[in-house]
Amino acid sequence: MMDMDLATALKTAMRGFAQSVTIITTVDDEGQRYAMAATAVTPLSMDPPSMLICVNRSVSSHKILEGGANFSLNILSVEQNDVAHCCGGGARGEDRFAVGNWTNDENGIPFLADAQAVIRCHQRQRISYGSHDIFIGDVQTIQLAGEVDPLIYLDGAYRRIGPKL
Amino acid sequence: MMDMDLATALKTAMRGFAQSVTIITTVDDEGQRYAMAATAVTPLSMDPPSMLICVNRSVSSHKILEGGANFSLNILSVEQNDVAHCCGGGARGEDRFAVGNWTNDENGIPFLADAQAVIRCHQRQRISYGSHDIFIGDVQTIQLAGEVDPLIYLDGAYRRIGPKL
Repeated sequence: MMDMDLATALKTAMRGFAQSVTIITTVDDEGQRYAMAATAVTPLSMDPPSMLICVNRSVSSHKILEGGANFSLNILSVEQNDVAHCCGGGARGEDRFAVGNWTNDENGIPFLADAQAVIRCHQRQRISYGSHDIFIGDVQTIQLAGEVDPLIYLDGAYRRIGPKL
Repeated sequence: MMDMDLATALKTAMRGFAQSVTIITTVDDEGQRYAMAATAVTPLSMDPPSMLICVNRSVSSHKILEGGANFSLNILSVEQNDVAHCCGGGARGEDRFAVGNWTNDENGIPFLADAQAVIRCHQRQRISYGSHDIFIGDVQTIQLAGEVDPLIYLDGAYRRIGPKL
């Protein structure tokens, strides 16, 4: 047990929690596109195939998701370090799409054509808890790149996966 | 888009999703202990500090959690590869505690004394979705090891983190 308050301790514990980097994308009714790097992304159920994301209510894309918008999960490969930097706070609004091979799908939601995987979700449920909302989406389609070499975020830095044990 | 059904495509996409390995632990009213390796673990909110886990309703610890039990999240270090194997299906019931430096906390919930982090959660909410239940827990206490070198699961294998980019 460390001598620090609980939120600080949780942040410290989570800095040591390695995870693939995902860019959550959505679009509003006026066609304005949103992208944000996220680590609070997890598979929920295989029946139906569904994903879960946790989004802080203070971020700009939250109000779009709160309105019921669908979203896509772009799982980055190690080659897309620059996209992660851009969508992780390095740029704002439409400028986040300046880096990377972005295209819009038939619903106007941007996706990264060469992402390791793109998981398109139909929003089904929102649950509020504390500072965040949980959004559940049923998977509509999945686009897979052949190779598996994910970009990983750990301890404030982007990393490559290491050797098998 | 690959020519495979959606659940298979989601499993394939998730095999390429790297994540720290967490052992979820709990205890029932008779003192029977449960442990399972999980990757569907994510921070939820910092205010209050809280975590979220997704648990298949078919696993043995589900019925304990469904009854409202509290749980602990043991984030493994790369040294605890053997614990991951044991709790990831290699053993059943109490045999899962045969490997690793396990102790019980004051509530009888087992924790791994030398885990990279142990996050003790007070269960607050359960949400059912498809084959799984989402359990939300408020963080009660956190135990941190000094070093950050997590065990990572990717593409069916346990791995070490790689170099910074």
